Amino acid sequence: MSGYDTSNIFAKILRGEIPSHRVYEDDATVAFMDVMPQAEGHVLVLPKASSRNLLDANPATLPALIETVQKVAIAAKEAFDADGVTIMQFNEAPAGQSVFHLHFHVIPRRAGVPLRPHSGQMEDGDVLAANAEKIRQAL
Amino acid sequence: MSGYDTSNIFAKILRGEIPSHRVYEDDATVAFMDVMPQAEGHVLVLPKASSRNLLDANPATLPALIETVQKVAIAAKEAFDADGVTIMQFNEAPAGQSVFHLHFHVIPRRAGVPLRPHSGQMEDGDVLAANAEKIRQAL
Repeated sequence: MSGYDTSNIFAKILRGEIPSHRVYEDDATVAFMDVMPQAEGHVLVLPKASSRNLLDANPATLPALIETVQKVAIAAKEAFDADGVTIMQFNEAPAGQSVFHLHFHVIPRRAGVPLRPHSGQMEDGDVLAANAEKIRQAL
Repeated sequence: MSGYDTSNIFAKILRGEIPSHRVYEDDATVAFMDVMPQAEGHVLVLPKASSRNLLDANPATLPALIETVQKVAIAAKEAFDADGVTIMQFNEAPAGQSVFHLHFHVIPRRAGVPLRPHSGQMEDGDVLAANAEKIRQAL
């Protein structure tokens, strides 16, 4: 485990160097659509503060983060009329982390529908834009 | 989705009616070993306040909860010399929830070792007790 690399893709999104389909933003947190969704409406929630993952995060940054996770989870469930919501947060590559800026996955779930693998299959941009709008409407 | 059922097994553990292998407790939160671990050192972190899951939780209860999740994740990684930590939190049965008191899974991970299914295979009590002690020592 090394430290925080400011060239990670989420740092670039936070700096506005790469576009994203944002659903929520406040002083401390941002939420945008995962471009390789494991289910319809898969959102990522990040702190604006730099940390590699939960293991090195300043504890002071966590309350705002979990409150945004909750808000987005409630809204995403409503937006997609989902049956539940799976929350996942990965720390280091052997635990599933692939981008090294702390983030929570918020994934609306339907009964009997397994998660798709996080396979590198990019979702269509128009679909992501429409799904982001559904969640914004529910927030 | 219905409300909070005070006869759920975690409510019984919180009331001391069922034993658990506790690793941490403060005014607002408790952490104990999962009796059906998906990997060595699998811990559950709960708020003492009653909520079914994250969707109905009082936002005021979340900061203490996520701070305990972080503490336990750091300690569990150290205790088992793990390569990473997977955090999961399930809301409603279609999302993976099986006990309806809000809880986070904190699971130490090793490179190349997939999670075991949450299959109903109970871990030996002596193993859980020894693993709980390892985490307490690291906290």
